[in-house]
Amino acid sequence: MRYIALRLAYSGTNYHGWQAQKELPTVSGTLERALSEICGEQVRVTGCGRTDAGVHAKTYVANFRTGSQLPVDRLPYAVNSRLPEDIAVYDAAEVEEDFHAVFSAVKKEYTYYIYPSRLKNPFYARRAYFYPGKIDLEAMRSAAAQMTGTHDFSAFRSAGSNVKTTVRTVYYFDCAAEGELIALKICANGFLYNMARSMAGTAIYASEGKILPERIPDIFDAAQRKNAGPTLPPHGLFMTGVWYKTPVFKR
Amino acid sequence: MRYIALRLAYSGTNYHGWQAQKELPTVSGTLERALSEICGEQVRVTGCGRTDAGVHAKTYVANFRTGSQLPVDRLPYAVNSRLPEDIAVYDAAEVEEDFHAVFSAVKKEYTYYIYPSRLKNPFYARRAYFYPGKIDLEAMRSAAAQMTGTHDFSAFRSAGSNVKTTVRTVYYFDCAAEGELIALKICANGFLYNMARSMAGTAIYASEGKILPERIPDIFDAAQRKNAGPTLPPHGLFMTGVWYKTPVFKR
Repeated sequence: MRYIALRLAYSGTNYHGWQAQKELPTVSGTLERALSEICGEQVRVTGCGRTDAGVHAKTYVANFRTGSQLPVDRLPYAVNSRLPEDIAVYDAAEVEEDFHAVFSAVKKEYTYYIYPSRLKNPFYARRAYFYPGKIDLEAMRSAAAQMTGTHDFSAFRSAGSNVKTTVRTVYYFDCAAEGELIALKICANGFLYNMARSMAGTAIYASEGKILPERIPDIFDAAQRKNAGPTLPPHGLFMTGVWYKTPVFKR
Repeated sequence: MRYIALRLAYSGTNYHGWQAQKELPTVSGTLERALSEICGEQVRVTGCGRTDAGVHAKTYVANFRTGSQLPVDRLPYAVNSRLPEDIAVYDAAEVEEDFHAVFSAVKKEYTYYIYPSRLKNPFYARRAYFYPGKIDLEAMRSAAAQMTGTHDFSAFRSAGSNVKTTVRTVYYFDCAAEGELIALKICANGFLYNMARSMAGTAIYASEGKILPERIPDIFDAAQRKNAGPTLPPHGLFMTGVWYKTPVFKR
């Protein structure tokens, strides 16, 4: 048996998330079908996170095992030729048997993109959150600074996942303009369900003056979901990085 | 009666072109339905060009007439609220009765986007032409220079349109990197059917050494479609500008 990790990217618009109901198209199901064809056996993939329907990934890591002897440097080309145009594999590498795309990860980065404009733009539809107003970047940055560090993020998660602890460490939460977009980059040792989207919603509320940055410590303390900002829609969210104890890919 | 011009943008992926069969979704049909709702009467629009299925527009102009008294500064918001997210109206202005989106235009610009890379990128799918090789920008520029000026573009058009003359003037044909993409910007006083896409295909052939730039005058002279480069696929093409004798919009 060989153990292989893949680095891939996908546009999540046409999928019901990474992993979901068997009846509906998912990224993992589509990838498994393509890999099974080239490996000549049923392949099961493990992904680095359960992205919701509509969420995208510029960088995503998945692992699988196979008896196939296909060389890893040919694998991206072979699998891409069997994948639809909204999923692409960029790299493949052999890993140790104990590698696990989720549990071996030491940190992840999500980026939430906002398109602040009077009028919508067809080319950002489903790729950024259209916000028909002005963004106060300084207020966002003050709020983001309060959300950085080690906290109990209970107020920033949706129900629906069982986790041992709700304490996470946010290494950075950068708010910056990227062309016409505002990019909110959040890097943490782990994310609770909907944590990135509710942190982005809290930054929007700070921009609107609905949440004062200096009150955010109270939001952590009270641990009530209703005190934080809204969960922004999925289509603005991109997984943009995942790091492992031992680097997996050469590039 | 009032005569109104609109500036809009659309992603053409989900449409069978600007104007086509009545049974299939088109950009003009979708726009007419939205305008008819807000004007309270049947509206017919005239577009500045018949973009093919899959072709996009960052700037497109259409005109229509209406008995409605809706103020033009409110019109973009009113119509956008009734349009799907892949079409957006940016501006509206009253024009003279004799304004015609096609016949009043003095020049147009199309941009063809190429994504040159070893591996495809899901976020450029249907928005740029994936080219799994290297681009020789200098060879493209030499070819583009030969295609600039006033020529009989018979070798650069597909059958299917009746025009009085096949002579057009290309004001510029710029080839430049835009981030990870190559943008081929062509501005002319008019475009024959598939002219922009076959000029882009000729630039690709020049990059590949299949057409020598200095032979392009012979291609014009022979006026044979087979001598020029291929018609590149529609999804890389964007209408990016249209200009009128009298500027129509304030911005």
